Amino acid sequence: MKKIKYGMVGGGEGAFIGDIHRIAARIDNRFELVAGALSSNAARAASSAAKIGIDSERSYVSYEEMARVECARADGIDAVVIVTPNHLHFPVAKAFLEQGIAVICDKPVTLNLAQAKQLAEIIEQRGSFFRLTHNYTGYPLVRYARELVAEGTLGKIRLVQVEYAQDWLSDKQEETDNKQAAWRTDPEKSGAGGSLGDIGTHAFNLAQFISGQNVREICADIEAFVEGRQLDDNAHVMMRFDQGAKGLLWCSQVAVGNANNLKIRIYGEKGGLEWSQEEPNHLMYSPIGEPTRKLLRAGHGVSEIANRISRTPAGHPEGYLEGFANLYRDIADALLLHQQGLPIPAELQLIPGIKEGVAGLQFIEAAVRSSKANSQWVTLND
Amino acid sequence: MKKIKYGMVGGGEGAFIGDIHRIAARIDNRFELVAGALSSNAARAASSAAKIGIDSERSYVSYEEMARVECARADGIDAVVIVTPNHLHFPVAKAFLEQGIAVICDKPVTLNLAQAKQLAEIIEQRGSFFRLTHNYTGYPLVRYARELVAEGTLGKIRLVQVEYAQDWLSDKQEETDNKQAAWRTDPEKSGAGGSLGDIGTHAFNLAQFISGQNVREICADIEAFVEGRQLDDNAHVMMRFDQGAKGLLWCSQVAVGNANNLKIRIYGEKGGLEWSQEEPNHLMYSPIGEPTRKLLRAGHGVSEIANRISRTPAGHPEGYLEGFANLYRDIADALLLHQQGLPIPAELQLIPGIKEGVAGLQFIEAAVRSSKANSQWVTLND
Amino acid sequence: MKKIKYGMVGGGEGAFIGDIHRIAARIDNRFELVAGALSSNAARAASSAAKIGIDSERSYVSYEEMARVECARADGIDAVVIVTPNHLHFPVAKAFLEQGIAVICDKPVTLNLAQAKQLAEIIEQRGSFFRLTHNYTGYPLVRYARELVAEGTLGKIRLVQVEYAQDWLSDKQEETDNKQAAWRTDPEKSGAGGSLGDIGTHAFNLAQFISGQNVREICADIEAFVEGRQLDDNAHVMMRFDQGAKGLLWCSQVAVGNANNLKIRIYGEKGGLEWSQEEPNHLMYSPIGEPTRKLLRAGHGVSEIANRISRTPAGHPEGYLEGFANLYRDIADALLLHQQGLPIPAELQLIPGIKEGVAGLQFIEAAVRSSKANSQWVTLND
Amino acid sequence: MKKIKYGMVGGGEGAFIGDIHRIAARIDNRFELVAGALSSNAARAASSAAKIGIDSERSYVSYEEMARVECARADGIDAVVIVTPNHLHFPVAKAFLEQGIAVICDKPVTLNLAQAKQLAEIIEQRGSFFRLTHNYTGYPLVRYARELVAEGTLGKIRLVQVEYAQDWLSDKQEETDNKQAAWRTDPEKSGAGGSLGDIGTHAFNLAQFISGQNVREICADIEAFVEGRQLDDNAHVMMRFDQGAKGLLWCSQVAVGNANNLKIRIYGEKGGLEWSQEEPNHLMYSPIGEPTRKLLRAGHGVSEIANRISRTPAGHPEGYLEGFANLYRDIADALLLHQQGLPIPAELQLIPGIKEGVAGLQFIEAAVRSSKANSQWVTLND
Repeated sequence: MKKIKYGMVGGGEGAFIGDIHRIAARIDNRFELVAGALSSNAARAASSAAKIGIDSERSYVSYEEMARVECARADGIDAVVIVTPNHLHFPVAKAFLEQGIAVICDKPVTLNLAQAKQLAEIIEQRGSFFRLTHNYTGYPLVRYARELVAEGTLGKIRLVQVEYAQDWLSDKQEETDNKQAAWRTDPEKSGAGGSLGDIGTHAFNLAQFISGQNVREICADIEAFVEGRQLDDNAHVMMRFDQGAKGLLWCSQVAVGNANNLKIRIYGEKGGLEWSQEEPNHLMYSPIGEPTRKLLRAGHGVSEIANRISRTPAGHPEGYLEGFANLYRDIADALLLHQQGLPIPAELQLIPGIKEGVAGLQFIEAAVRSSKANSQWVTLND
Repeated sequence: MKKIKYGMVGGGEGAFIGDIHRIAARIDNRFELVAGALSSNAARAASSAAKIGIDSERSYVSYEEMARVECARADGIDAVVIVTPNHLHFPVAKAFLEQGIAVICDKPVTLNLAQAKQLAEIIEQRGSFFRLTHNYTGYPLVRYARELVAEGTLGKIRLVQVEYAQDWLSDKQEETDNKQAAWRTDPEKSGAGGSLGDIGTHAFNLAQFISGQNVREICADIEAFVEGRQLDDNAHVMMRFDQGAKGLLWCSQVAVGNANNLKIRIYGEKGGLEWSQEEPNHLMYSPIGEPTRKLLRAGHGVSEIANRISRTPAGHPEGYLEGFANLYRDIADALLLHQQGLPIPAELQLIPGIKEGVAGLQFIEAAVRSSKANSQWVTLND
Repeated sequence: MKKIKYGMVGGGEGAFIGDIHRIAARIDNRFELVAGALSSNAARAASSAAKIGIDSERSYVSYEEMARVECARADGIDAVVIVTPNHLHFPVAKAFLEQGIAVICDKPVTLNLAQAKQLAEIIEQRGSFFRLTHNYTGYPLVRYARELVAEGTLGKIRLVQVEYAQDWLSDKQEETDNKQAAWRTDPEKSGAGGSLGDIGTHAFNLAQFISGQNVREICADIEAFVEGRQLDDNAHVMMRFDQGAKGLLWCSQVAVGNANNLKIRIYGEKGGLEWSQEEPNHLMYSPIGEPTRKLLRAGHGVSEIANRISRTPAGHPEGYLEGFANLYRDIADALLLHQQGLPIPAELQLIPGIKEGVAGLQFIEAAVRSSKANSQWVTLND
Repeated sequence: MKKIKYGMVGGGEGAFIGDIHRIAARIDNRFELVAGALSSNAARAASSAAKIGIDSERSYVSYEEMARVECARADGIDAVVIVTPNHLHFPVAKAFLEQGIAVICDKPVTLNLAQAKQLAEIIEQRGSFFRLTHNYTGYPLVRYARELVAEGTLGKIRLVQVEYAQDWLSDKQEETDNKQAAWRTDPEKSGAGGSLGDIGTHAFNLAQFISGQNVREICADIEAFVEGRQLDDNAHVMMRFDQGAKGLLWCSQVAVGNANNLKIRIYGEKGGLEWSQEEPNHLMYSPIGEPTRKLLRAGHGVSEIANRISRTPAGHPEGYLEGFANLYRDIADALLLHQQGLPIPAELQLIPGIKEGVAGLQFIEAAVRSSKANSQWVTLND
């Protein structure tokens, strides 16, 4: 099968997320990394490129140049993966889209909502291919949970409780040499949200993805617990969905003892579901009036839709990288169809895109706005 | 040791909670049940009394009569246990307190805040002995969690996340012959709160008990998901504490798959704690920068304060009834001291009383008020 | 309902297990403790009796005298509870049985198999009432597991895997002032088995109780890991059952990190079960080809047989003491029927008695014999 | 870094394990698949090769031809991966080793012990590079467990309890069209062990790997529970180690409800460890007299040795494929050194090789021999 040739912007040495994307793209052998602007520091860009096997000729310092040159090459990249800090997402995406190159972008999609809307416009006008790596939607049992809800197995949904707790910013990491902490707590690079943008958007996306409902309005109380921190490191959000469900969203980077605890529970009139990212290979399903079932990835009672994106039998744990790889695999299939002007089937349309990106920024900005107004309810599309 | 002679109001046949209190009072052999007004239905009162071994002479239909007669008897009861629906708590408590009889009362303490304050006044004026059975405070590891916070082990507290989820009211149980459901969903008998009063007050009490902080203001969104239900069956509450912590409280009786899932997590600058009522024999403790510890009831590293109220070694699970019994045991000791006019030591003062009762009603009424005002922040002592 | 008047031999101050039995007997209010030979030390016997409310007149130093005197009293005890070290079980039981007093005895039933068989003979000849407190059979979900097997829900049983791991004898506790450790590691008081007798017999009993099969032969490798210890502190046992199942039994008192980890798994042609004593309120049930179910005590899908011995709804954890109390409650009912010469219904016959006691000693002695013969298979009724 | 060019024998369409190896080899981008004899069926070999991107020129039907031709090519493969049924391991490995091509082989290493010893001789004589994919040794926390034992953190090891339970052969799958079941239950293709060879060898290897001790002798009871099955589907094994530890090994493919439940517990004089393959991202560590710690992969308190083979931060679950990939990554590094005649550092010598392969066959054959002799103890190197 044809491999997607891709380049990467960001993700040089020392950047955690670049490696993640590269492994995820590699797992199913559908992508080939051939170009990069891995760092704005020329030396680091070059050494990073060498280390990961990008030809020095196709290692760029400037992403604008990369977009231009790659577009001009006969063997130019099909797609670019953007893994920079948030403030660069928009200009980089714009540069590549304008050269007709497909974009795979880390979340949140842009620095602010205005940029996100502008990007959406570009994409729509050009008919561009754009995908957003809300990677947690790639877990097979997340897909299965979504399917159970969509099929009505839980009945009308009443509650969506989602939380995403970490602890790595419990103290002032941004004053150490922790680069990850530095840009994430800097409004210039991160945007209006701290934990809201970094992890809250994942929780928000997951809540909408599984429930199949959009959040209509939220009421938020955000806080920077670490003294002197400019962006929130904790957020409490009450949600009301457009089809009547309600929910709570909690995101935190100061919850000591939590590594990467993303967890979602959905309750409807006829059943409940519970799934936790740290132990992603089972999904608890409770039909009303019956005992709870422990559903295993690729195990008994799980659908083909979920099994399609499993690689190993039940009991052979898959994890974060495989979930991420599921996005890449589906993106490869979808991009090939897109390149041929063919329609993209429903199962490949589950991958988040610009719509989810805009929603994420609406969420961040609404949460900030609500919190500033002492937790007034604000609608997401204000 | 001298046994406390007690009577019971409510708790006749078919009432779940009466049995619970009687077992809890019996476990440590410090109480003797000698009188009762177990039901307002004369036949049921008599048969219930006979069944549980109360002399027919001391089985009453009217609690007022019981208060009067028992007070007059030389061998009259030392204390009354009130396990009626909420609307009777106040008049019954008042009747016995006015006869000089100590009161042990189920929560919420009264039907509404006004009554609670009136009761507080009576208690203060008379110097009465009054205890409120927020039984979850009786779990040894809840006590230990409280101690860890108080000693500063977690540092300054930032977050208090508490939830209490059940599912038994997911459909309209109040229209079946479920007596428990009927009065709990009836504002005349239950008060302004549905799930808020029945279980939310437990969660609220636990949050304050362990954190050692009082909630200053809340912002709530309550809901009756089951059509036609008069009281909330779900509540989302954001909290701000008086010493700077924040928190979320979720209570629900429509979360399918949850039996009696009361869970609390506390995070401070230096550590985190997690405890779940359904598996109460361990407490997860995470010191910042170190691996999480699994502390066992009566196990390594747990304090004498917690061990004092354990009966069995680690690994021999204690549960709901033992936690409840811990309240009764301490109440017995405290009441004996009270009867002798002696001071009650600190360790026996952990048992909730009228102060916690008033706070519970403040919580319920503030939540209802906030929710009606579209989730405005309201202070608890408005 | 008539209360059983009972006395206790052993269980004075400092003896853990005496309190356990007294609480268990008290929980359902069917027993009244009126006499005791709590210690062979006269002073301790007297002070223990005083402390727990036994009339000094009925506090004995000699169990023989107690048996004689209580038998002679019009208001003498109905039953005696024996909670001494093992070597006294036989003479004490014999003394009371010969006075026509019912016996409730801790396990293992006697010091050795010869005594057990002799006791069985006495019981049979006199038609005595004798029960053995293999308390783990009192857990509701253990009863339910047994029922599921008996009903054929699992199909023909293939495997019975049971383990009972503790760690409190990981070092030489018997050389400290730990009285519990001292007698348990002393062959004169404990018998041929160390961990085998103390906890292995519980595991063995549970395996037979749930599977409904008897162990026909075993192959064992026992060990005293702590230097200088006279009795085993660890045993590995392979089992073959009389109806074709096989199994492993592991008991250990040197498995660091295990408090009281008794766990059993049963597998048949059509399903599997898993239950753990430290979290006794759920039972995992896996029908072949379907997802695993988490069955809750008193929850959905659990039978009346199990629910009869639950006191609280699902989600309100019951534990070790409640399981123990279930034995006492059923013993009370059975003893009342026995006293009247009435037949004892099947549901009350689940309580272990002398038959299980003999089997326990057969197990211990066969394990020792097999191990001495370098793990030859030996039948239990050799 | 130079990539290893490799070929594969076996692993055509429909063979689960071929994909696994290919993904594992791909994750860290150190291998390139360029040749294959994927099936002995010419059509399937060709279509499988085409599907996974092997040039038709280098897709072989005969492994002998492949060995010969690849050896002769200037750009011939550095290594071959053998993922056939067991009976082909030996001839295939021999063919490639004799052409000077490195071998990466699935377990058990050969059909029987005689072949394994012969293979060992070839490897020693030729100084060949040979590695065996006991993939469970590639989990970071397995490596860390091994390190904790080696450093003496647990003190002298007393107990090694290991189990590997599955349920996919609970009924007669070999009579359906389940190819995996067919060869695994056929002595001609699988060897003397059924579950013993397929999963028992993994358990055995893990026990030795973590404990750092060799099993000296075993006492086994093996069984084919499914009627008419020729090889064991369940085995009970008691073990004695050469440095004094003892242990139990249970492997089963008929334990309904178990997917791929490999679990190991190690107990020493000073501590205990517990790790489960199905939730491989934490390791429970219990120091004597202290609370149990939950150690997270890449989390607090875990060593550099373990972190070196982690790709994601704590809380981002890694699984089976990443563990497998850790073997491939280390094999790549080791093979490059081997090709240059350089010494292989200790950290790369943890990958199992022919020594572990011989031990695995000794285990299988000793278990069969012991079981046939009615569970006599037999030494492994008889």
